Amino acid sequence: MKTLEWRENCLIILDQTCLPTEIKYREACTYQEVAEAIKKMEVRGAPAIGAAASFGFALGALAFKGNCLDFWDYMETVRAELEETRPTAVNLVWGLRRMQNRMYEMKKEWDIDKIKEALVEEAKAIAVEDVRINRKIGEYGNTLLPDKVNILTHCNAGSLATVDYGTALGIVRSAHDSGKNLHVYAGETRPFLQGARLTVLELMEYGIPVTLITDNMAGFLMQQGKIDMVIVGADRIAANGDTANKIGTYSLAVLAEEHEIPFYVAAPTSSIDLKISSGEEIPVEERDPCEVRTIMGVQIAPETAKVYNPAFDITPAKYIHGIITEKGIIHPPYSVNLVKILVK
Amino acid sequence: MKTLEWRENCLIILDQTCLPTEIKYREACTYQEVAEAIKKMEVRGAPAIGAAASFGFALGALAFKGNCLDFWDYMETVRAELEETRPTAVNLVWGLRRMQNRMYEMKKEWDIDKIKEALVEEAKAIAVEDVRINRKIGEYGNTLLPDKVNILTHCNAGSLATVDYGTALGIVRSAHDSGKNLHVYAGETRPFLQGARLTVLELMEYGIPVTLITDNMAGFLMQQGKIDMVIVGADRIAANGDTANKIGTYSLAVLAEEHEIPFYVAAPTSSIDLKISSGEEIPVEERDPCEVRTIMGVQIAPETAKVYNPAFDITPAKYIHGIITEKGIIHPPYSVNLVKILVK
Repeated sequence: MKTLEWRENCLIILDQTCLPTEIKYREACTYQEVAEAIKKMEVRGAPAIGAAASFGFALGALAFKGNCLDFWDYMETVRAELEETRPTAVNLVWGLRRMQNRMYEMKKEWDIDKIKEALVEEAKAIAVEDVRINRKIGEYGNTLLPDKVNILTHCNAGSLATVDYGTALGIVRSAHDSGKNLHVYAGETRPFLQGARLTVLELMEYGIPVTLITDNMAGFLMQQGKIDMVIVGADRIAANGDTANKIGTYSLAVLAEEHEIPFYVAAPTSSIDLKISSGEEIPVEERDPCEVRTIMGVQIAPETAKVYNPAFDITPAKYIHGIITEKGIIHPPYSVNLVKILVK
Repeated sequence: MKTLEWRENCLIILDQTCLPTEIKYREACTYQEVAEAIKKMEVRGAPAIGAAASFGFALGALAFKGNCLDFWDYMETVRAELEETRPTAVNLVWGLRRMQNRMYEMKKEWDIDKIKEALVEEAKAIAVEDVRINRKIGEYGNTLLPDKVNILTHCNAGSLATVDYGTALGIVRSAHDSGKNLHVYAGETRPFLQGARLTVLELMEYGIPVTLITDNMAGFLMQQGKIDMVIVGADRIAANGDTANKIGTYSLAVLAEEHEIPFYVAAPTSSIDLKISSGEEIPVEERDPCEVRTIMGVQIAPETAKVYNPAFDITPAKYIHGIITEKGIIHPPYSVNLVKILVK
């Protein structure tokens, strides 16, 4: 199972909405198809979205056939359409900006074909780097883990949320590979159930002991001393360390604090958005009420029930013990140390 | 929709597992059928279980046909089988004990038919009293509510969890009927989804504004100032005020504390168990992993995923601002005030 694969000028996307019961791939040969796959969460997870959108940008360029003077406006449409798919994860913006920069670097060559080629190469480079970055996150995160540890994670910050290897689950894999005795509790992560559907699947495949719980059990587990550490991913980290991540993350952070359990965020530095000073400025996507009223197509509430469905929440920096990146572990004060690591 | 109805020596039970999409009743004409309905959670909610088990006890007596000397041992089997159905809610034990006391009061009459009749009457009385009790809880609880209030509730502590009217939702109904401007957030309450399936349904029927959320959204709502008060039911309250209630309640209590939001428990005094000194002694039922791995029959996790599925959790008394009973509102210190109210 590969999240994304570039094959003959097409992006092969694992349709994660069908997991764990069905392994299905979508061939996205246009940027619009990539945008649709991101919107529908067939591909999800901040780093995976960043890479997918970058390939989408390259697909947009490849499809261009008009007067070369129109190329730049056309590519702006492509970029905007891809960027609009999901508002919270900054990796999407980051990937598209990097692609755009590469495009403008090539502008002086006045050769659209060369630009197209360079963009495909750039997207491939982003994908390759993502895996390398995740392995580094895994190595740094592993230094925090004792030999025997019970970790709670939320949503899926695994290989399925990235090009490969994973961020929070990359740490788990790295620790497991180094011989540590780990056990993971995976919160199912309603409404989209990424924990139940994806995290449990991944960890079972790697042979890492995992126990599935519903999200509302986390407090009771902590009260019973069953959790030693919480590690989650991130969709956007503000300059002060406030972190947007999958809905339910903030509740876990408060619960961890109450039980004196360290709470860590694992993310590539591309998830850090210094242009945003605090979590209050991070746009939180609200999704279709149907995701709450139905589960995998089955109705679980009155059809006309009113629903609130924010896809993310914001965890204030004060609850976060450290942010584990590919450049090292960032500790508070984040407003100083995030900048430091980015210029490193 | 009536939770329970006694009709021609049969207990008609609304099968709540089919709600909200189907209204289906089960005729329980033997005590074993009542026990099965309780185990399968076709009837659920501490007060409703207490009443159902009492009717089950009466049904057990009605079915007795042997030598009257064997009656008492037989009834002990009936009682034990009903009591074993679910371990956490003390109302089950309370109802059965009350039925047993009534039976022994009648022993001196040496007339099994009269005893049978008396037991049916006693079960009916328990059911009638439950509604009266809930209305009193509603009245007392209403005194705590401002004119405009956003309430978060968990699971279903409504008419479907009782013979009628409800405990936590009884308060909501009472406030609504008195003209207050209420809005309720209902946590869906995984794994069994009593919030999504039952609470939303009930409140929509009463015309009380309700918004459905997944359980992991509670913290984010509180952070945004969207919740003024949390009111939940209870399955068992220990002598020190520690309260067992549906899994997820404890997490809400911690979150409420962090956001300085008052957290109240609404329950009849029959949920108070002075024989248990603290929450640590309350048995917490663990249920079938299938309840987590599947939702209404649809698989949401790998088939062989390991699951932890406690049906309840324990909220320490220190998080509880007050316990709203039919005898009044109990405030801390609970170890003193619970006894006081019980002898009132």
